[in-house]
Amino acid sequence: MDAAPTSLDLLPAPTAGRVWVAFSGGRDSTVLLHRLAADIAIRARGLGALHVHHGLMDEADAWAEHCAQVCRTLDVPLRIARVRVDRQGEGPEAAARTARHAAFVETMADGDILATAHHRDDQAETFLFRALRASGPDGLAAMRPWRTFGPGWLWRPLLETPRGNLQAYARAHGLAWIEDPSNAHTDLDRNFLRHEVLPLLARRWPHAAAAFARSAALNADTADLLARHDARLLAAAATADPAALRIDPLRASDPAQRARILRRWIDTLSLSPLPAEGVAQIEAHLLDARADAQASFAWQDAVVRRWRDLLHAERLRPALTEDWQATWDGSAPCTLPDGGRLSLEGASSGFDVPLTLTARHGGERITLPGRTHTHALKDVLQSLGVPPWERRQLPLLWRQDALWAAGDLVLSADGDAWLRAQGARLAWHRG
Amino acid sequence: MDAAPTSLDLLPAPTAGRVWVAFSGGRDSTVLLHRLAADIAIRARGLGALHVHHGLMDEADAWAEHCAQVCRTLDVPLRIARVRVDRQGEGPEAAARTARHAAFVETMADGDILATAHHRDDQAETFLFRALRASGPDGLAAMRPWRTFGPGWLWRPLLETPRGNLQAYARAHGLAWIEDPSNAHTDLDRNFLRHEVLPLLARRWPHAAAAFARSAALNADTADLLARHDARLLAAAATADPAALRIDPLRASDPAQRARILRRWIDTLSLSPLPAEGVAQIEAHLLDARADAQASFAWQDAVVRRWRDLLHAERLRPALTEDWQATWDGSAPCTLPDGGRLSLEGASSGFDVPLTLTARHGGERITLPGRTHTHALKDVLQSLGVPPWERRQLPLLWRQDALWAAGDLVLSADGDAWLRAQGARLAWHRG
Repeated sequence: MDAAPTSLDLLPAPTAGRVWVAFSGGRDSTVLLHRLAADIAIRARGLGALHVHHGLMDEADAWAEHCAQVCRTLDVPLRIARVRVDRQGEGPEAAARTARHAAFVETMADGDILATAHHRDDQAETFLFRALRASGPDGLAAMRPWRTFGPGWLWRPLLETPRGNLQAYARAHGLAWIEDPSNAHTDLDRNFLRHEVLPLLARRWPHAAAAFARSAALNADTADLLARHDARLLAAAATADPAALRIDPLRASDPAQRARILRRWIDTLSLSPLPAEGVAQIEAHLLDARADAQASFAWQDAVVRRWRDLLHAERLRPALTEDWQATWDGSAPCTLPDGGRLSLEGASSGFDVPLTLTARHGGERITLPGRTHTHALKDVLQSLGVPPWERRQLPLLWRQDALWAAGDLVLSADGDAWLRAQGARLAWHRG
Repeated sequence: MDAAPTSLDLLPAPTAGRVWVAFSGGRDSTVLLHRLAADIAIRARGLGALHVHHGLMDEADAWAEHCAQVCRTLDVPLRIARVRVDRQGEGPEAAARTARHAAFVETMADGDILATAHHRDDQAETFLFRALRASGPDGLAAMRPWRTFGPGWLWRPLLETPRGNLQAYARAHGLAWIEDPSNAHTDLDRNFLRHEVLPLLARRWPHAAAAFARSAALNADTADLLARHDARLLAAAATADPAALRIDPLRASDPAQRARILRRWIDTLSLSPLPAEGVAQIEAHLLDARADAQASFAWQDAVVRRWRDLLHAERLRPALTEDWQATWDGSAPCTLPDGGRLSLEGASSGFDVPLTLTARHGGERITLPGRTHTHALKDVLQSLGVPPWERRQLPLLWRQDALWAAGDLVLSADGDAWLRAQGARLAWHRG
């Protein structure tokens, strides 16, 4: 066990905002609250305690009363958040954590800091737990000293402090605590690591926990370095459209780096995580394809397509079926088979004659504004750079036998004149 | 335990060279030898077994005899290398490993491959062991499926195979083995992980070893990616002199990346490892210094200096003391106080009048070839771009009261004429 000082060093806070201590009434959070309450600079920025009353057990009221007593003694305002744990679809511990997080986030104002009492031994457990779930450096980085959280920040000022130092601090200051309710909730995996595995390791390697925590910190440094490399390359490949990346910078980069940023890109678009096979398929068939090939890789509900010099990612949407047909009078938005919508915006009423909607079949011609002869729709779409998959989802709007508009991408002379006269516009919301 | 096939997949070999199996006679290496001996393609490239006879225990002769018997049955040539373990300064296990490695390296010809029987459970132990010593991704990458070794390669074809599959293979093929001598040697740390820690983890997480091995592989991917980034940046900062780096590309790079390549650069020069404090000092005082400042950081026996737009690294050598003086007749090399040497090369005899050697004191002047008036030595050295620390190590050669040469950097008209007449040259070998 490390030296056991009666004062505790804090890791730097992310900002100068108000601090809420996540206060269960257990030893660790009692130590943290006591330490912060004795800190004039922390008090000056505003210090509060936040106790989550789970209402799961009979003792919950007694715990809350104990917390109130501690806070009165320390002259720190306490807020008690009563939560109802919704156990549907989650284990009891995960459900309690979800409820706790929601309560914290609800209490915090913009820029507030939630301080938790995680210490070095917790970090060692987290590191080992991540290794047991097969992790690279991003996972093995374990907990960070601070990160964004809800409307503000999460801060773990004691993350480099051994548990023994917290124990010594609690003794030295004669602190009273209750058996930590959040420990009681702690799941079986955590308890097994804490009570079986780490003590066994410590028998032969007294500094095992310190070594795991240090390993986590080294992995965090690496994860951060890689994230900066990722961001740089992603910026180099970016276009005005977040759903499109330029292929040339991707092709020029390191394959392992490329795999990382393809995953990160898909992640930022809130699509399903790109599987390893997807990375391989994109490598083999999309990046090396001839520029005019229409290669794609689809997984779950998402798709990445190459078209010209770009990769496009989006939610997978079905093409319109060839026999689809609908009538639309423009008075209300019209829902399309793929979940998209057509709407007429800014018009006081609908069309004078209801329009017929169809899919493309090929061979359509349209009279463009300012022209007297017709153009092949195919040529118009091509010159506009409409990607092929979008052409297959494009609803055509017919007035009697004349093509009046193609989605909101192409207007006929007739359609354009009518919309201008109405001060209106067509809008095609993709599904 | 994973599926237990009676055939084992091999990871790809690094090259098509001849394969030596490191054959202890224990179960794992018996399985590997049997598997490779049954492989026509491996036999075609040349397959041998290599048994190291430690001579440490009485059983060593019996083990060697057992190995010979197995190899006769498999029709694989066996080489037995007798080693004497030098236990000075190392523990018995480390000493045995050193001796084993030396024996392997001695047996291998250029391009040969040494195959070892490390399996997935060994890899899991190594991963955990590295984490217990506080490691980042480079360390947590653990063992690699292959790497360079001695004059050739080390190959671990079973590194992704669970121990259980080796056991099943041994049973299915009725293999006979002896209790593995190298296991008997295995140190206490390893045994503790193997017999205490991993079984405990497996009670709650049956796939713990697989997860650790997978974590190692993910870390290896990251370590490789970072190494490629390092190499790229190092190349961008390189000069013709491996001991000098350009400062501008360093300053433009990410600080964490820069710390990595500074360490790697020092490593390639075979200097003592750069401490963390050294990286911080170089950041703070060398990279941000004004270009004419002569900042430096020294540690152990090495030093990094900034001069003009370059960082220079070298072994730390003392300056000549002010009162140092020697006489040199040129007939044999003259050793300097810092371990360097002056020699006269290509001359049939020494100087006609012995030269006096001194350190620089300042104010010296020299008559350069083709000139009749003297120049300040300081100006000459500056115009040659001789770094300041080298000037302090520079021996001056005097003939009577005239400066005849400064090391081999500057020759006087007199010195130049004499050397030309002799067809000789001066050489200053730095200490």
